[in-house]
Amino acid sequence: MKIATIKWSGGIDGFVELIDQTQLPGKVEILPIRDQQAMWQAIRKLQIRGAPAIGVAAAYGVVLAASQLKNGATIDPDGIYVQIEQICDYLATSRPTAVNLFWALDRMKHTARTYLNDYIRGGANNTSNISTTDMIRGLRERLLAEAQAIRDEDAAMCRAIGQNGAHLITAGSTVLTHCNAGALATADYGTALAVMFAAHENGVPFSVYADETRPLLQGARLTTWELMQAGIDVTLICDNMAASLMGQGKIDLIITGADRIAANGDTANKIGTYGLAVLARAHNIPFYIAAPYSTFDFSVASGSEIPIESRPPEEVSEPFGYRVAPAGVKVYNPAFDVTPHGYITGFITEKGVFDSHKIDSVNN
Amino acid sequence: MKIATIKWSGGIDGFVELIDQTQLPGKVEILPIRDQQAMWQAIRKLQIRGAPAIGVAAAYGVVLAASQLKNGATIDPDGIYVQIEQICDYLATSRPTAVNLFWALDRMKHTARTYLNDYIRGGANNTSNISTTDMIRGLRERLLAEAQAIRDEDAAMCRAIGQNGAHLITAGSTVLTHCNAGALATADYGTALAVMFAAHENGVPFSVYADETRPLLQGARLTTWELMQAGIDVTLICDNMAASLMGQGKIDLIITGADRIAANGDTANKIGTYGLAVLARAHNIPFYIAAPYSTFDFSVASGSEIPIESRPPEEVSEPFGYRVAPAGVKVYNPAFDVTPHGYITGFITEKGVFDSHKIDSVNN
Repeated sequence: MKIATIKWSGGIDGFVELIDQTQLPGKVEILPIRDQQAMWQAIRKLQIRGAPAIGVAAAYGVVLAASQLKNGATIDPDGIYVQIEQICDYLATSRPTAVNLFWALDRMKHTARTYLNDYIRGGANNTSNISTTDMIRGLRERLLAEAQAIRDEDAAMCRAIGQNGAHLITAGSTVLTHCNAGALATADYGTALAVMFAAHENGVPFSVYADETRPLLQGARLTTWELMQAGIDVTLICDNMAASLMGQGKIDLIITGADRIAANGDTANKIGTYGLAVLARAHNIPFYIAAPYSTFDFSVASGSEIPIESRPPEEVSEPFGYRVAPAGVKVYNPAFDVTPHGYITGFITEKGVFDSHKIDSVNN
Repeated sequence: MKIATIKWSGGIDGFVELIDQTQLPGKVEILPIRDQQAMWQAIRKLQIRGAPAIGVAAAYGVVLAASQLKNGATIDPDGIYVQIEQICDYLATSRPTAVNLFWALDRMKHTARTYLNDYIRGGANNTSNISTTDMIRGLRERLLAEAQAIRDEDAAMCRAIGQNGAHLITAGSTVLTHCNAGALATADYGTALAVMFAAHENGVPFSVYADETRPLLQGARLTTWELMQAGIDVTLICDNMAASLMGQGKIDLIITGADRIAANGDTANKIGTYGLAVLARAHNIPFYIAAPYSTFDFSVASGSEIPIESRPPEEVSEPFGYRVAPAGVKVYNPAFDVTPHGYITGFITEKGVFDSHKIDSVNN
């Protein structure tokens, strides 16, 4: 994309710029984010969303917060590390389901711990050269470098996902996708949409149906926008129209992203994904998940252990401020559902395309 | 309901009053309909909707139009009948899928033909007593009586559907429904919702999940409103959340209405019904269609012969005037889909509950 989904602007005292995705496609508004509270809000409000992009956002959030680390009078690396942990704990509460968030925060903590340990060792050899101010400045530079690495690696992984999956889209075929797993959901290029971008770049003609994806309409607002910008033929449908298209033989392949994949391949993704997977099975349509390997969470054995975020009822009953249901109506609004691995034909990752039985072999 | 979905107001020179369903649940606005053009628009714009209610509306539309029948200088029953046919042909173009529309118009035509034939016979015996004005006035009275009969029969059928299906809802169970097949979709009491109203009146405790039913949100706007008014426990969901509830074992029974049922039991109903039926099968959940017997169209052998209405793209891309997709996006917006009879556990009608193999026996 011409405009970055999320980027760091300036040097170590800089700030984050991200596209406010709640304003798309009506407005392309760049939101400056200058502290961790603003980043927490941006993640919570879905101004930035998509599992990989949330990971990048959280890492930048740590960098922003590190500018406010408290300098003690004496060198106290462990005290600094406690503050980093607190920052990460705070950012981790922004959204509960996407594992990339926790994975990125773990990387940032590890970076801080390694730097501080090295600093202690270096300082012990040459106490005259160390100061609290220098230590914190060095830490901030390391954290920014790590956040930039997470972003760059994400962009590279997305390209690899696209290349690895492109052969699945054959000439004349029609692909269905759900929600937005595109450039807007990642540092660049996307996951499910990366496969489509790559096939399109290879000159393969194909069409896409995009589920609008209630309640927040990421498919209508973001996926159609990205595909139209790329010149890919896309048709918007309501979520409840997908089955009818499958029944008419009009869908050849389904590809979605993922927010967290358990060790057995059970996959949490945007609400509605499970239904598509069951319908795909009933109609003998291949169903693929495209996601970077960091989306796998080997600490959870199966999907039942993945926490599912509940979101406010107003997203359903008052879309865009327009009340569509009686006042006081009860609403069930889970952001995600879990698709058992048995419904998933394969996973498209930067390490290749493999089925759920092969997850362990790729991990080793 | 305290306010009638649709009713005739006044005598033979009266007019129709109907609840403008596009304004619900925000406003309960009664729309006066004084001619057939206004009725055609009300049906087309879904100010009145639901297969049985459309039938009643079309019948009243014929009565309104009959006030403008052209009096010839001489008695010409056949010329009058041609005008009635033209009125019915016009009203038949308002929406293509619901068979009740055509069934009601056929009844009105038959009523006119019978009356005019009788009039000719009566007139032949006593020519001094006949006049064009008298003939038309008599015809209008017969047409109004027939339209009232269609409405009254519809209300009685709905009560019978409720009573016949009530036993399917057991204490503590949870029912899922799609779109609105309630009092607002009929002259009174509904079809799918009639079963719920009857179970509730019998004192059976149960819960309902209502699909919001994109694009026009009849479930969010109308079904939750009707169930809440009746004191039935209802929770609103987006259409794409139903599968997840089924996967969690939270749905015991699915009941929807129908717009047209082919001779073999294939059923056209609101878009999204087919997907629910396939998901119900995958989760071993009984799936029932509740509809008056007039919804069966024995002139079409199977669902593939039922015409499916395509509706404007803006219903999807600009819900309630708020643009949610890029300008110029392609949209697929069928109003209905067809569920093959094999997915339907049974049909709940005023004649009883039966499976698709028994349709012919009920017909005979």
